[in-house]
Amino acid sequence: MQLLSSCYLFKGLSEFRLQRLTTITKETPIQKGQWIMLEGKKAEELFIVKEGTVELMTKVEDDFELPIAMLRNPGECTGTASLVAPHEYSLSARCEEDGTMLVIQQEDLKKLIQEDHKLGCIIMENLAQHMLERLKETRDELKIHFKTLLKSAHH
Amino acid sequence: MQLLSSCYLFKGLSEFRLQRLTTITKETPIQKGQWIMLEGKKAEELFIVKEGTVELMTKVEDDFELPIAMLRNPGECTGTASLVAPHEYSLSARCEEDGTMLVIQQEDLKKLIQEDHKLGCIIMENLAQHMLERLKETRDELKIHFKTLLKSAHH
Repeated sequence: MQLLSSCYLFKGLSEFRLQRLTTITKETPIQKGQWIMLEGKKAEELFIVKEGTVELMTKVEDDFELPIAMLRNPGECTGTASLVAPHEYSLSARCEEDGTMLVIQQEDLKKLIQEDHKLGCIIMENLAQHMLERLKETRDELKIHFKTLLKSAHH
Repeated sequence: MQLLSSCYLFKGLSEFRLQRLTTITKETPIQKGQWIMLEGKKAEELFIVKEGTVELMTKVEDDFELPIAMLRNPGECTGTASLVAPHEYSLSARCEEDGTMLVIQQEDLKKLIQEDHKLGCIIMENLAQHMLERLKETRDELKIHFKTLLKSAHH
């Protein structure tokens, strides 16, 4: 339960609500080299790192994947695309080091939210906040490219 | 009320909930050249286009703003950073054509959500879904730059 409470998605949930979440959370071992998410595929599961390392990436060309992030801290999560329509993973994730993940099925979480909209409201607000942070970071990366283009245009 | 229902944020709300939203919505005229949001400033208001045109942009350098989007369709909205912490606009918005905006104060919406968590849950899920779409689009723009770099490296 302490691990769930350290995940940004569940920030601000009461002990009672965290306890309810643990009832739909399952532990799953992961092995080095294993793909746990594939970009473009149906997103049915949310993953929270308990142990191990997971790399997130997105395909640029057939032989080139752009690395997005490395999850290695307990409580970090991925697979949040499972929480919103169209429920399709936007990234791929490969295990880089044996470990254990906490897994929550989207269907189970959906049921919990239908029974407790305050829980849903808190999780969705945390998710929206996180997505906005990622969006700003990605825009900042884009700006670096534009600055480089501007500089080369000035020379 | 029909205009509110055409905004992606309020998709899926019942007539009753849309009616409640109209009680906290105010119409405000906007004039060409007027700035309605400034990047980095406190985000207290959500804007929905009724009439007119608004350009969204982000600063790259002091003399260069990167255009992000042009809002000209009734029901399009901006200022969603007001809905999540740290409540700080991530973009600037300038009116390009006289018109009218619907404005919702963050404080008023927050109170409504505290009274009705299902309403909050629906709005926050719509927001998270929209942010994920923008994030994917921005990543796609970044990929175009990487592809260009890859091509020039191959030559």
